[in-house]
Amino acid sequence: MAIITLTTDFGSRDGYVGAMKGVLVRLGREPTIVDISHDIPRGDIAHAAWVVKTACHEFPADTIHIVVVDPGVGGSRNGVVLDAQGQYYVGPDNGVFAYLEPYWARAIENTRLTAPDVSSTFHGRDVFATAAAALALKIDPTAIGARVELSGKLPWGPRPEGVGRVVHIDHYGNLITDLPPDEAGEAVTLAGRRLAIVQTYESVLPNELLAYVGSAKTIEIAVRDGRADRMLDAPRGTLIEPATLGSEYR
Amino acid sequence: MAIITLTTDFGSRDGYVGAMKGVLVRLGREPTIVDISHDIPRGDIAHAAWVVKTACHEFPADTIHIVVVDPGVGGSRNGVVLDAQGQYYVGPDNGVFAYLEPYWARAIENTRLTAPDVSSTFHGRDVFATAAAALALKIDPTAIGARVELSGKLPWGPRPEGVGRVVHIDHYGNLITDLPPDEAGEAVTLAGRRLAIVQTYESVLPNELLAYVGSAKTIEIAVRDGRADRMLDAPRGTLIEPATLGSEYR
Amino acid sequence: MAIITLTTDFGSRDGYVGAMKGVLVRLGREPTIVDISHDIPRGDIAHAAWVVKTACHEFPADTIHIVVVDPGVGGSRNGVVLDAQGQYYVGPDNGVFAYLEPYWARAIENTRLTAPDVSSTFHGRDVFATAAAALALKIDPTAIGARVELSGKLPWGPRPEGVGRVVHIDHYGNLITDLPPDEAGEAVTLAGRRLAIVQTYESVLPNELLAYVGSAKTIEIAVRDGRADRMLDAPRGTLIEPATLGSEYR
Repeated sequence: MAIITLTTDFGSRDGYVGAMKGVLVRLGREPTIVDISHDIPRGDIAHAAWVVKTACHEFPADTIHIVVVDPGVGGSRNGVVLDAQGQYYVGPDNGVFAYLEPYWARAIENTRLTAPDVSSTFHGRDVFATAAAALALKIDPTAIGARVELSGKLPWGPRPEGVGRVVHIDHYGNLITDLPPDEAGEAVTLAGRRLAIVQTYESVLPNELLAYVGSAKTIEIAVRDGRADRMLDAPRGTLIEPATLGSEYR
Repeated sequence: MAIITLTTDFGSRDGYVGAMKGVLVRLGREPTIVDISHDIPRGDIAHAAWVVKTACHEFPADTIHIVVVDPGVGGSRNGVVLDAQGQYYVGPDNGVFAYLEPYWARAIENTRLTAPDVSSTFHGRDVFATAAAALALKIDPTAIGARVELSGKLPWGPRPEGVGRVVHIDHYGNLITDLPPDEAGEAVTLAGRRLAIVQTYESVLPNELLAYVGSAKTIEIAVRDGRADRMLDAPRGTLIEPATLGSEYR
Repeated sequence: MAIITLTTDFGSRDGYVGAMKGVLVRLGREPTIVDISHDIPRGDIAHAAWVVKTACHEFPADTIHIVVVDPGVGGSRNGVVLDAQGQYYVGPDNGVFAYLEPYWARAIENTRLTAPDVSSTFHGRDVFATAAAALALKIDPTAIGARVELSGKLPWGPRPEGVGRVVHIDHYGNLITDLPPDEAGEAVTLAGRRLAIVQTYESVLPNELLAYVGSAKTIEIAVRDGRADRMLDAPRGTLIEPATLGSEYR
C-alpha cells in the first residue's frame, strides 16, 4: 500500500484537508495517509521547507510527500513532482523543496493526472492530490511532464562558509540554525550573545539560554523551560557565528 | 477495510478524539480512520455543515463519515445515520447534515449499536462511534432504527432565487458564498462593495479584494495576501448579489 | 498490523510529529498510526496523564501507545515501556503514566532498540519511536531492559478518601474531577459553590453552572454554553467535596 504524507498551511478548521484526503483515498487505492502538518504558517514557504527537510527523510523509500504551501496558486509557478533520494515530493515550485538535493523534477503537465476541471485556488485537491494518487498507482514518472530545474528559492540563499543562519523557529520558541556542530566549536555568538555549547537542557538553570546540537544535527538555541524567540531579537535569517569561550569559562 | 472519517469540535488537547478512535479500532475491525477536522468552532453547526459538504463527497462509496458538533448532546435531538449519494453519515440531527440531498435517515434506536452505559455528554464515543463501527461491519441499515426526516436546519434557510449568502468563513479569512457563478455574471455586490469576478489571486494587487469562482464552485471573496473577513463587515448570512460592471471597467 | 498511537506536546507546526511517524512507518512494518493529541500543553505532565487515562483504554489489546511530554529529555529520568491491562505504553517515567495500574515496566536500555546516534533533545524520534517499532515487530519484552518501578508522580498524589480534586480542564473549560459519583451523592461543593448533580446540560439554563457524571465516570463541572474555568477560581488540584442539598431544593 502506498504511503502518502501531507504538509500544508490549510489549518484544521475547514474541509480542505478532508477534500484532499478524499481524493487520495478515492483515486489512490486507499493509500496510508500520514499527516505531517496542516499548521504551517500561512504562505510561509521557508517554514514548510524546513519541516519537509527534517521530517520526510525518515520515511521509507517510495513514500509520496505532498506539500501545499502555495501563495502563488493559479499563477505562473509550476506544479512539480520530485524524486529525491528515493522518495517522491509533489507540490508547487516555490521554494518548499529547496533543501532537497540531489533531485530530478518534472512539471505536472499531463492533464490526465489532474482533475477534469482544475480550480484556480485549490491545486492541493485538483492537481497535487491527483498526481500523488497516480504515483501511488505506480504510474511511469516520465508520463508526468517534462524535466525541469527548480526555480523556487529560500529568502536566505545557500549558507556562506563558516557561519550559519537562523532557519526555523519551532513550536517551543527554539531557534534552529543551519550551522553544523563541527564548524561551531565550543561556543557561538548570535544577536550579540555568546553561548557555550552544552549537552542538555539540564546543563543550565531554568530561564537561561543555551546552545546545543539539535535534533537536525545543527546548532540550536533554546531557553530552559522558556522561549528563546522571546528572549532574543533573532528572526529567521539572523547570523550565528562560531566563537571561543572567554577565560571566564575556563 | 472500511473507511471512517471524523469531523468534530473536540479540539486536539484532550482524550476525546482518541477515545472515539479507540472505539472505532476496537469494534470496527481496524478501519482506516481519516481526520477531517477536530477544530470546528465549538458548537458551530453551520461551520460543520459546510465542512461536511465540501470534503465528504470526495471520498469513495461506502465511506462512513462521523460528525460530532453537538451542543444539544443528551437532550432531545435524535442521533441519526444518513445514506446520501452512496456514503454514510453518523451524528446528531441538528443541522450538520443540512446540505446533503437526497438522503434517507434512520434514528439510532437499537441499543445493541451503542455502548452498554451511554454517558449523557459523550455520544461521540458511546453512540456515534459504536454505530459507525457497526456500519463498518456491514450491519443491515434497517437494524439501526426507524426512518426519520431530518429536522435540523441552518440559520439562513434555503437560498432565495437570484442572490447568495456568505455561508462560511475559512482559515484564510475568505468569505465563501452559495452564489453559483452562472448567476453572478461579471461582478457581485456585497457589504456595499462591487467586485469584478477575476480568475486568480494574481489578478489583483496585494491587499486588494477580489471575487472569483472558489473551489466549491461558488463565488468567494478574498484579499490577496490578506484577510477578507477583516476588510469587510460581512458575517455569515450576509447577502451577495449579482452586479454589472460600471463603464469605468470597460 | 500493529496499532500505534501518539500523544505529544510537539504541536503541529514543525516536523517533529512527522519525523516520529516516518521512523514508525520505516521500522515498524507500516503500522496503523493513530493521532491522539499533539497539543498537550507544553511540558504539562498531568494533562498528558489524564488524556492517556481517558483515551488509551478504549483501544484493543496489544495497542502500543507512545507518550512524549518530556521536559526532562536528555536528563536523568528513565525511558520506559509499560504493559498495563494488555496494552503497551512507551515514554518517559515522569508521571505521564501515573494513572495506569497495575503495570509492569522496563527501562529502555537495549541500544539496539534506539537510533544509532541518540540526540539529547528528541527521544520521541530516537528512543520512543524506535522502541515502539520494535514492539510492533513483536520483540520479546524482556529484551528491552531491566524491570523498574515507576517513580514519576502527579502533583496532587493519590486521592484522599471521601473527597476529589480537579484533575483536568478540557477544551470546553469543563472542570473534570476524580470524585466518583457514588461518593458524591446528590450534590458537591467546590470553590465555595454548592451544585446539585443533574443529568444533562439542558437541566440548567444557558450560562449556568452544573455538576454531572462526566464521560470518565467521575464528577464534572461545566457551564451550559459557557466555560466553567472562567466562572470559577478552581485550578487543577482544587478540592471537591460531597454535599447535601439544602431545603431550598426540596
